[in-house]
Amino acid sequence: MVMRKLFFLLFCIPFTLQAQVNQDSIFIKKMADEILTNGKAYDLLRQLTKQIGGRLAGSPQQQNAAIWGKRNMEAFGPDKVYMQACKTPSWQRGGNDFASIVRMNGKAVNQPLAALALGNSLGSKGLIEGELLAVANFDELEKRKNEVKGKIVYFNSEFDPTIIPTFVAYGQAAVYRGSGASRAAKYGAIGMMMHSLSTAPDNEPHTGGMFYDEQYPKIPAVALGPNDAKELYANSKKGTIRVQMQTYGYFLPDADENNVVAEIKGSIFPDQIITIGGHLDSWDVNEGAHDDGAGIVQTMELLRMMRAIHYTPKHTIRFVLFANEENGSRGGEKYAELAKLNNEKHLFALESDEGGFTPRSIGITCTPAQLKIFQTWSPLLKPYGTEIIAGGGGADIGPIKTADDNVILSGLIPDSQRYFDYHHAKTDVFENVNKRELLLGAVNMAAIIYLVDQYGVPKK
Amino acid sequence: MVMRKLFFLLFCIPFTLQAQVNQDSIFIKKMADEILTNGKAYDLLRQLTKQIGGRLAGSPQQQNAAIWGKRNMEAFGPDKVYMQACKTPSWQRGGNDFASIVRMNGKAVNQPLAALALGNSLGSKGLIEGELLAVANFDELEKRKNEVKGKIVYFNSEFDPTIIPTFVAYGQAAVYRGSGASRAAKYGAIGMMMHSLSTAPDNEPHTGGMFYDEQYPKIPAVALGPNDAKELYANSKKGTIRVQMQTYGYFLPDADENNVVAEIKGSIFPDQIITIGGHLDSWDVNEGAHDDGAGIVQTMELLRMMRAIHYTPKHTIRFVLFANEENGSRGGEKYAELAKLNNEKHLFALESDEGGFTPRSIGITCTPAQLKIFQTWSPLLKPYGTEIIAGGGGADIGPIKTADDNVILSGLIPDSQRYFDYHHAKTDVFENVNKRELLLGAVNMAAIIYLVDQYGVPKK
Repeated sequence: MVMRKLFFLLFCIPFTLQAQVNQDSIFIKKMADEILTNGKAYDLLRQLTKQIGGRLAGSPQQQNAAIWGKRNMEAFGPDKVYMQACKTPSWQRGGNDFASIVRMNGKAVNQPLAALALGNSLGSKGLIEGELLAVANFDELEKRKNEVKGKIVYFNSEFDPTIIPTFVAYGQAAVYRGSGASRAAKYGAIGMMMHSLSTAPDNEPHTGGMFYDEQYPKIPAVALGPNDAKELYANSKKGTIRVQMQTYGYFLPDADENNVVAEIKGSIFPDQIITIGGHLDSWDVNEGAHDDGAGIVQTMELLRMMRAIHYTPKHTIRFVLFANEENGSRGGEKYAELAKLNNEKHLFALESDEGGFTPRSIGITCTPAQLKIFQTWSPLLKPYGTEIIAGGGGADIGPIKTADDNVILSGLIPDSQRYFDYHHAKTDVFENVNKRELLLGAVNMAAIIYLVDQYGVPKK
Repeated sequence: MVMRKLFFLLFCIPFTLQAQVNQDSIFIKKMADEILTNGKAYDLLRQLTKQIGGRLAGSPQQQNAAIWGKRNMEAFGPDKVYMQACKTPSWQRGGNDFASIVRMNGKAVNQPLAALALGNSLGSKGLIEGELLAVANFDELEKRKNEVKGKIVYFNSEFDPTIIPTFVAYGQAAVYRGSGASRAAKYGAIGMMMHSLSTAPDNEPHTGGMFYDEQYPKIPAVALGPNDAKELYANSKKGTIRVQMQTYGYFLPDADENNVVAEIKGSIFPDQIITIGGHLDSWDVNEGAHDDGAGIVQTMELLRMMRAIHYTPKHTIRFVLFANEENGSRGGEKYAELAKLNNEKHLFALESDEGGFTPRSIGITCTPAQLKIFQTWSPLLKPYGTEIIAGGGGADIGPIKTADDNVILSGLIPDSQRYFDYHHAKTDVFENVNKRELLLGAVNMAAIIYLVDQYGVPKK
């Protein structure tokens, strides 16, 4: 019965939807009004950022954040709330990262550089010093590979400012953060520096995950503040530069962390799961307000709102605060592992991990035919500023595919112009999140979840 | 010949455009790249806000800003730059506005209220004190008109948070700022207080223009910080409250100010004018960064960019820094008056006065048939985040209609969620403007101006 009913629903989406457009728009407005008038996301974000603070995986703050999330979600009255234990990396910064210019064209100088060690990078074991080899990119590194030995390599990994969606520019530049150290170490570099992955016209360095290639020496790696990086690169064209750096990174044994899962049981399809989530962890240097406090409190707000307006979902809805995304994605992997173990059916998953800015789109990863059907819902989202576009998801929900290949992944896509001003820098704090923008993200998440819950998802 | 050519151009827009879509998109990208890579708008905004500061009409800063604008535009090398002298009001705040609660339910208290006198309001001539009559709106005022005499009336002019476009909510609430004092004075009120026209979850009071009805006593009027206003209104339901207030506003004789106009002569239609502009003046309590420093520096950036890429416009393009918008619109009126006097033909005017946020639309005020043709350009704007929608303009360009009724008015419409957090409050400072968002506004302004310059405007 359930399957036949679902088939009917799926097959008839465009028509069903058309018939009920008015009713749906009234219900979505009811949810929006509740969120915009009584929403708790902003207050929750203040608590998470100001009372708990930075929440690197493995830190006491991350554990506190999980307990905080569980207690708050329990208070909103879902059918159940539970923890999913998982092991996460426990990278430690270990000290105040240091970099400076000590010699220019043979002349002694003492010019400190704003620097942050990259996450997962290992300490320099004391102060290291070397001649700087500044390159624009990997191509130049390959051309000059014979010059690398014994030097500290700098990658000029600036964003291309002419690319309008900043996530695309980030994607191009982030390869230097991910693998730049090992690519330089391959040719004998003793350290690595890079231009922070930042759009901000300031000098804040931005940290973020890197990964060593086990074949090569694990050299220290730092991101420089944008102003210092630009000046260093310009000066490198004019003569020789010697730099020093010292970092302290190391790993403790993997830590015991938890995903926090709240659930409202589906009234018609209790065995079909819709997942909504963001990640609890952040980098150590900031409050993780946009990344990803915003996604956490939007997820919690959807639970609060559904209970406040007494919404009875057809499908089971899970509100998931993932344990570890930044430097390991262990939370998302654990969630998927348990889903597979329990043979769960996953209909749809929505992630919010691009900041608490004004929402522009709901991105859905599906076939073109499915997208066309989803897009018949765009008029229902338009009053709230978004439309449905192709492509969406995130690191935390991605692994669900391994448990149920039919799951459709989606993501809230906010305006991206400010995200990389703050991302992984100490400026990602509560004060840089706007209340209305944050709530409007939750409104659009609520709208798409409601529509999926009402009409299911189109067949492949 | 000129007219026939124009007619041909106008008539053929959809087809012409289609044929040249690729060429146009390449040229728009060239302009965008220049703005996003070498744009000076952000640096100019830093100068305007930090070196000159608040620029209330009639202030020395406003005069300095005009000189600054003229010199900077001259440096960008247009065909000419000139001043248009105009008289502006010269309202003076005159002191530190004061408000407080002195008695609640008969019991003495001393609770200061964050307050700013409304612009154009006259001082209280000493400290005044009265019982508070707090009303939700004009309806309640009318119902309770017999209770007003001798009291200080408070209007609970909060924004409706469920309205997504904040300018719509502002429009509803702003009537209390504009005419609340006289409406209360009509029934004998001795002072007026209101909830600031603000979306911010803080306690910053927001000033802004008010206008007295000459029939009634000109009572003092203040806007209260949102937190204080909410608490005051809640307490007013519980008992009697006595408040005090003191303001100092007065007018000096009208001041001598200037619009600043830069011009690039049209190569084919030199007698047809396209106007781009924003306003130089701001309120006294802030730096006027979003309102309207952003519009000023975007206007200047378009001039810089056109010269940098050697664009030769077909029509004459004017870059106008209007003298006075906030409390008189005298700059816009002077521009229109001279246009009429000189019998100028105005094709199109574009205003930027809704802040330096990520652009969402270009609004055009025209007939539905014209709009449909304009909207064939939307695909060219989409890569830069906007589309063409109905309705747009602004207080500075509106008067041009009186000189040439055929002019089509338009406005840059940025995302509006943050605008009323800062608007007319001391928080409207440079630090709250994002560089990429500001430049992206200029990019979209450049795109629409280029298209209008290339293809003209559709017939009515």
